[in-house]
Amino acid sequence: MENEHISSAFDTDLEAVQSQIMKMGGLVENAIQLGMKSLETRDAELARQVRVADGAIDALEEAINEGAARIIALRAPTAVDLRLVLCVIKISGNLERIGDYAKNMAKRTEVLSRAAPVGNGMGTLRRMTRAVEVMLKDALDAYIHRDVALAADVIARDVDVDQMYNALFRELLTFMMEDPRNITACLHLHFISKNTERMGDHVTSIAEQVIYLATGKQPDEARPKADTTTSAGAM
Amino acid sequence: MENEHISSAFDTDLEAVQSQIMKMGGLVENAIQLGMKSLETRDAELARQVRVADGAIDALEEAINEGAARIIALRAPTAVDLRLVLCVIKISGNLERIGDYAKNMAKRTEVLSRAAPVGNGMGTLRRMTRAVEVMLKDALDAYIHRDVALAADVIARDVDVDQMYNALFRELLTFMMEDPRNITACLHLHFISKNTERMGDHVTSIAEQVIYLATGKQPDEARPKADTTTSAGAM
Repeated sequence: MENEHISSAFDTDLEAVQSQIMKMGGLVENAIQLGMKSLETRDAELARQVRVADGAIDALEEAINEGAARIIALRAPTAVDLRLVLCVIKISGNLERIGDYAKNMAKRTEVLSRAAPVGNGMGTLRRMTRAVEVMLKDALDAYIHRDVALAADVIARDVDVDQMYNALFRELLTFMMEDPRNITACLHLHFISKNTERMGDHVTSIAEQVIYLATGKQPDEARPKADTTTSAGAM
Repeated sequence: MENEHISSAFDTDLEAVQSQIMKMGGLVENAIQLGMKSLETRDAELARQVRVADGAIDALEEAINEGAARIIALRAPTAVDLRLVLCVIKISGNLERIGDYAKNMAKRTEVLSRAAPVGNGMGTLRRMTRAVEVMLKDALDAYIHRDVALAADVIARDVDVDQMYNALFRELLTFMMEDPRNITACLHLHFISKNTERMGDHVTSIAEQVIYLATGKQPDEARPKADTTTSAGAM
């Protein structure tokens, strides 16, 4: 934590809210990991825990929003300070959405447990989910350390997640065509993978905000990584 | 505009900020349309206008943020009212990002003007951009009217944008393999299409917030539309 120049009441107030962001980030990373695990191991009890734990994530978002509103009301921050407070609000909103997608993943454990496994679809989904989890961890590290290079790398990695989503989508189509009994399970897996892809979008938003906070500029020139890998047939 | 029960000072203050959101939305829709047009017609002067107009979008976001901060400071809203103010802040943030992507599109007009046209890549990009533009218009209409069904439809349409992005990506790969002289132009087009896909993500976020505002619940059960079209070979 960068707490070497906590001088004003504003900084102290903000520090408290920032630590809630980090706590929330940890819970969300956990939710992604356990949500995926519950799905893969068909563990209904674990799925239930993930669903229950989402309440704590939502409560933290509320607390962060109220904390941020209190700072605005008490300290009347302007310019850069206001931008920082608003950023905290936006990041907590992104984290809350990611947590919801993880909860939704866990919710599908029960219905997917009743279906036969479809090819290696679950393995692809696990790799995709793991990639998003690491992106989230890195985006939050980039936020703490205002690490622009790391944030730009996170944004670039979102392209990989998209490509994993596309590959899985084609894989699922094949399974459905092979055996119509796979269709229900495949539709659920497609739904989950789309939500995982959306988690990646929210992580990208967090990383974009880190760049904005650190540089005052939006990362609209950040080049997607696939630009350099397309000719290698990355799709 | 739903202004039938403007009763409190809070509502009046908020109404002013909301109308700035609608104004910002109009400017952003315009930027998408003209950014795409400048690219397609290789119109450097139009591209310049889009870049300049982005300043007004950024200024509106600043004004909305300051207006929202003023409301929080003066009215100390809690619960539902606070949620509404924070939502306005988040939506203006989404609009600002979309505007940046449109500006970035215009910025590439000059470099793309120097290259030979690549197949029908531009046509696919135009359709994709047009789809996002209509999604944005609908998301803002859903916001004004708190129209949950329309917002859910916008979220579902994001899947179509993803699939257009994938189709274009494959198309560009083919052009690059056919003739290496196409590579530079294709990389630019790929970059633009990825940004257009990201515009779609931000529009989706706006639609999700409309559902949250109207129902108090996150739309984590909203099913991607492709679930019903996959077997028809939509990819």
